[in-house]
Amino acid sequence: MSYTVSQLLTQDITFQPLEIKGWVRGFRSNRFIALNDGSTINNIQCVVDFENTDDATLKRITTGAAVHIKGELVESQGKGQTVEIQVTSIEILGDSDPEEYPIQPKKHTLEFLRENAHLRTRTNTFSAIMRLRSTLSFAVHKYFNDNGFYYMHTPIITASDAEGAGETFRVSSLDAKNPPLDDHGNIDYKKDFFGKETNLTVSGQLEAETFAMSLGKVYTFGPTFRAENSNTSRHLSEFWMIEPEVAFMDLAGNMDLAEDFMKSVLSYILEHNREDLEFLEQRLLDEDKTKPQAERSEMSLIDKIKFVVDNNFKRVSYTEAIDILKNSKPNKKKKFKYIIEEWGADLQSEHERFLVEKHFKCPVILFDYPADIKAFYMRLNEDGKTVRAMDILFPGIGEMVGGSQREERLDVLKEKMKALDISEEELWWYLDLRKYGTAVHSGFGLGFERLVMFATGMGNIRDVIPYPRTPQNADF
Amino acid sequence: MSYTVSQLLTQDITFQPLEIKGWVRGFRSNRFIALNDGSTINNIQCVVDFENTDDATLKRITTGAAVHIKGELVESQGKGQTVEIQVTSIEILGDSDPEEYPIQPKKHTLEFLRENAHLRTRTNTFSAIMRLRSTLSFAVHKYFNDNGFYYMHTPIITASDAEGAGETFRVSSLDAKNPPLDDHGNIDYKKDFFGKETNLTVSGQLEAETFAMSLGKVYTFGPTFRAENSNTSRHLSEFWMIEPEVAFMDLAGNMDLAEDFMKSVLSYILEHNREDLEFLEQRLLDEDKTKPQAERSEMSLIDKIKFVVDNNFKRVSYTEAIDILKNSKPNKKKKFKYIIEEWGADLQSEHERFLVEKHFKCPVILFDYPADIKAFYMRLNEDGKTVRAMDILFPGIGEMVGGSQREERLDVLKEKMKALDISEEELWWYLDLRKYGTAVHSGFGLGFERLVMFATGMGNIRDVIPYPRTPQNADF
Repeated sequence: MSYTVSQLLTQDITFQPLEIKGWVRGFRSNRFIALNDGSTINNIQCVVDFENTDDATLKRITTGAAVHIKGELVESQGKGQTVEIQVTSIEILGDSDPEEYPIQPKKHTLEFLRENAHLRTRTNTFSAIMRLRSTLSFAVHKYFNDNGFYYMHTPIITASDAEGAGETFRVSSLDAKNPPLDDHGNIDYKKDFFGKETNLTVSGQLEAETFAMSLGKVYTFGPTFRAENSNTSRHLSEFWMIEPEVAFMDLAGNMDLAEDFMKSVLSYILEHNREDLEFLEQRLLDEDKTKPQAERSEMSLIDKIKFVVDNNFKRVSYTEAIDILKNSKPNKKKKFKYIIEEWGADLQSEHERFLVEKHFKCPVILFDYPADIKAFYMRLNEDGKTVRAMDILFPGIGEMVGGSQREERLDVLKEKMKALDISEEELWWYLDLRKYGTAVHSGFGLGFERLVMFATGMGNIRDVIPYPRTPQNADF
Repeated sequence: MSYTVSQLLTQDITFQPLEIKGWVRGFRSNRFIALNDGSTINNIQCVVDFENTDDATLKRITTGAAVHIKGELVESQGKGQTVEIQVTSIEILGDSDPEEYPIQPKKHTLEFLRENAHLRTRTNTFSAIMRLRSTLSFAVHKYFNDNGFYYMHTPIITASDAEGAGETFRVSSLDAKNPPLDDHGNIDYKKDFFGKETNLTVSGQLEAETFAMSLGKVYTFGPTFRAENSNTSRHLSEFWMIEPEVAFMDLAGNMDLAEDFMKSVLSYILEHNREDLEFLEQRLLDEDKTKPQAERSEMSLIDKIKFVVDNNFKRVSYTEAIDILKNSKPNKKKKFKYIIEEWGADLQSEHERFLVEKHFKCPVILFDYPADIKAFYMRLNEDGKTVRAMDILFPGIGEMVGGSQREERLDVLKEKMKALDISEEELWWYLDLRKYGTAVHSGFGLGFERLVMFATGMGNIRDVIPYPRTPQNADF
C-alpha cells in the first residue's frame, strides 16, 4: 500500500510492506535518505541496503531526485526519529544533477529563493509558509461558514474606481499601439471589450454591500490590485483580501467580529500546524542570534500568536491616540519624521508602531477617525467631524484590518459624494441600497498576506505569496 | 435577544422576548408581514397588532422595507407555518417606496433581474442560487482540505500566455493614448509597470504544477479570464476555476479524483441546502409546465444531482467515442452540423451532448484524445498519437472538467514546445520541473460556474455569478 510521509509518522503501520514516493532531501553515508513528499515538514529516514544496491542507482540518489521506494516501516535504531523505512527496492523516477540543482542542502538567501520561486517550496521554510497559508485560508472559510456568512465572488474586472483606494491597472483588449479614438481625439473605450474603460478591482466592498443588504452576512476572499510604484517589504501589486460585510451591524459589532475572527483563525493554526510553526519559530530564533540584543524579538513566534489569541485588543479612539502621541517622548524629542501637532493629522506607520509596539504592546483598534482622512462611504458621527471607521494595528506589521460602519443615510451619502466629486450616475446601484430598505451595516477588509506574515514571522511580504507581483516583477 | 429567521424556524425558543431585523417580503391584510433576512429561503410570519399600531407606521410596511421587530415567538394559528412572531413593536429602519422599488412580489424576467443584479438576491430564486454557490465553494475547500491538499493562490497578472487556452486581456499602466515606443516603433513594455507585457491569467495550472512537485497535492480556486467575443449562455469573460494538481498521480488516478470530488461536493449541498434545492426544483417544474412535453426534463433537479452522486461516470476512450458517433443516427442522417468522418476530429458540443444525453445518459469521462487537438503539456501515450487527456461531460452542461496527465519527460516536452513554437526561454521554470526530480503528475480544471449551473438548474451562466462580465458588460 502507498502512504504519505505524514501517514507513516503518525499512524501505527509498522512491519507491513509499503510504498512511498517523494523527493530526496539529503543522502548520507551512502545509506540514509531523508525523504520528503510535502505532506509534513518532517522527512522520513529511508535506510538503503547499499551492499545489495547497484552503484549506478546509489549515485543517482541525489538531493532533489524523485524516488519510488518499497520497504517496511520499522522502529529506528538511530537518534532523531522513532521509525524509519528499511528499503527493499528503490527506483529513481526523476534525477537531479547535483552540479545543476539550485536547492542544495545549505542555507540560501531569501532573495536567491525569490529568484527561484518555482523551487523554493522544496525548502523547509517555504513549504512551512505555504502550508500555513493554506491552513489559514481554510480557517477563514471555516470561520465564516460556521458563523452563517455566505462566500461571495465579487468582480475582478470593474468599470468603477469609486472606492478611491489607490491607482488601478487598466484592463483592455484594444490595439495598444493604435487604439481607436473618438471625435474628441480621446480613446474610444466604447470599442473596448466591455464597451467602457475597465480596470482591476481595488476592493469588493461596494458589491459586498449589495449582497449584505439581502443575504445578511457575506464575505469576499479574492485578489485585489494596486498599481502603486511602492517597492517596500509590505506592499504587493496583487494581493488577496478578505472582506466581510454584515447588515444590521454597527461599528462596535464590527470590532467584535474582527477580533473574534482574528483570534479564531490564529487558534486554528496553533492547533493544526504546530510543527510548521515550531520550525519557523526556531528559524526566527536562529536569525535573532545574529542580531544585536536590542533588535531581537521579545516574544517567540508561537508566544506572539498566543498573546493575540488570549488577550483583548485595546480599543482606543483616534482622539485619545492623538493625545497619547502628542505627549509621547518621540514626538516631544522630534524623533518622529512627522511630528503630531494637532487633531486631524493622518497617522503614519511610525505613529501606529509607537502606539502598538511601545505604548500598548498589544493589538490596538483605533476608531472614530476624522472624516476628512477617510473614505466617502463611512458613517458620519453625530459630531459631524468624525466617522465610524476602525483600523486594527498589529505589532511588527502595522495596519492589519481597515473597516467601518457604512453611511446608510441617502441624503448624507449623496452630499458627501458631491463634495468629493464622486459620480452619482456611476454609483446608482450603490445609492439604491439607501433608497430601498436601508439599514445600519458594517464591514472590514483584511489583507491576507499581512495575516500570513504575522503567522509565519516572515518580514517580507514577497515571501508569503506563491508568486509575488511587484513593480518590475511579474515572473513565473 | 436578537435572532435570525433561520434560528427562529429551527430552534425551540417560543415565548421568550425576542428581536429580529430583516426586510419585508410581503404585507397582507394590514397584519401579516412575511419577513426575510437572508439566513434561509423561508420567511417568518410576523403578526402586527394593527389596532394598536399607528397608521403612518402601517403604511411604511412595504415590500423591501427594512424593519426592526420586537415580539414573542408563538405557535401559529394559520396555515403554512408552525411558528410566528406576535409583534409588540415595529420600527421602520429603511423605507421602500412601492411606486419605485423594482423588486415587487411578482414574477420578474431573468433579464430584468440581470439589469438589477444589485437587488436580485432579494428574490427567492437568486438568494437560493447564491447560497448554493457559497455552500459549493465551501464544499470545494472542505473536500481538498480533508484530503490533504494545500490551497494555493496562483497569480492573476501574468507575463506568460503559454497555456494557449484563449485570448487574454492586457493589463497595463502605460498611457493608453500615447504609449512609449521603442526604437522599432513598437510599444516599449519595458516602461510598463511590470517591465514587460502582462495579461490576465487563463489558468493557474503551470504554477500549480510547481507546487505539486514539492508539496505533493495542491489546488487553486481563483478567477480566470477569456477575452473571447462569445455571447452565449455558457461563457463568461471572468469566471472562477478549480484546478487540483497532484504529484505521482496518473490519468486513472486523475479520473478517480475528479469523480470523487464531484460526487462529494454535490452530496454536500444535498445535505446542507435542501430547502434551496427544493425551491429551485419547483421553479424548474413550473417552468417545464410552459414547455411542450418533449422539451421537459426527464429528471427533477434533486434527482439529477442524486443520479450523479450515486452512479459511476462512464469512462470511454476518444477512439471508442468516435466509433459510436460515426455509427450514430444523427451522423448517418447528417443531422449533426459537423459530420464525424474519421478519427482525429475535434468533438463539438453537439457530439458531446449526443454521447452524454442520448447514448450513455450519464456523466461521461472521455480520455486519450489525439495529441493534435490538445495542449502541449499533455503526456504523450506510447502510441505516439494520443495524449493522456480527459474531459468530463455532464448532461445539459457539456464539458465540466478538462484534465490530463502532464508530460514529465524533458526531451519529449521540449520537442513538443519546439513544434508548437512555444518559447523555452519564457517557460524555463516549467522545464526545470522536468530537470530536477521529475515524476508523473496530473490535474484538472473545473469551471466553477458550470458546477453551479448544474447544481441550481439555471440555464444561463450569467445567473450563477454575482456580477457577470461578458462582452459589452462590466456593470456594477
